[in-house]
Amino acid sequence: MECNVLGWYFGERPRGGPEEGKMKEWNETPYPDMIRNLPEIDVPLEGVRGWLLQGANTQMVFFDIASTAEVPHHSHCAQWGLVVEGEMELTIGDETRIYRKGDCYFIPEGVSHGASFLTRAYVIDIFDDPSRYKEKNTEG
Amino acid sequence: MECNVLGWYFGERPRGGPEEGKMKEWNETPYPDMIRNLPEIDVPLEGVRGWLLQGANTQMVFFDIASTAEVPHHSHCAQWGLVVEGEMELTIGDETRIYRKGDCYFIPEGVSHGASFLTRAYVIDIFDDPSRYKEKNTEG
Repeated sequence: MECNVLGWYFGERPRGGPEEGKMKEWNETPYPDMIRNLPEIDVPLEGVRGWLLQGANTQMVFFDIASTAEVPHHSHCAQWGLVVEGEMELTIGDETRIYRKGDCYFIPEGVSHGASFLTRAYVIDIFDDPSRYKEKNTEG
Repeated sequence: MECNVLGWYFGERPRGGPEEGKMKEWNETPYPDMIRNLPEIDVPLEGVRGWLLQGANTQMVFFDIASTAEVPHHSHCAQWGLVVEGEMELTIGDETRIYRKGDCYFIPEGVSHGASFLTRAYVIDIFDDPSRYKEKNTEG
């Protein structure tokens, strides 16, 4: 089954209701407005965008990543993540695997990891650190 | 592929390292300690537990749900969710489907929904409301 949110968007309902215009805005993404309206993170990698749910001791980021993006090897706090849609080649330590829709992974603190992408990918990650990412400066 | 976090647990590494004892504690769950250490929610449904990531305008809950649990029909703020592991029969409005690992869904504000479970299920949900759930009172 595809994400039902996509079915909702490309599907039959609602037609002409007050939500119709709003819904078209997140065409082609599994993330609804309630996620896209979160603050966007400041990330220096081309083709990588993310929306931040800031907790007291934790951050969660909803990533939207172009197939052309590359995440070079790096390490930091512990991280748990899950592929919502798409295909990602992720190396954790010395193990490289392809991760697809529904696959999740745990990266212990300090373990080097990097990724490339076989498709556009939607990936959610939770970081055991409240300051892994900063919000983008939206003042321009 | 199963969640790699399970592979990590049931797999070869780390053996005897400082993480070994800690890791055994989350045997049989895809959620690492960084999630299990979040505040637990106060939820009156038997067989349902959840850990809360509290945002400024949003809540995210990592649910661990017994196969015997029943979530009666109810409605509230908009909700987006995803099945991490397991099988859930979810009715949104008048549409009932089975959702499995990697399947996600969007429940617009005010739309009635309810669920039952074919297996123990791990489900993550994000709520467009900072007060959908309260933390469990841990003093009692």
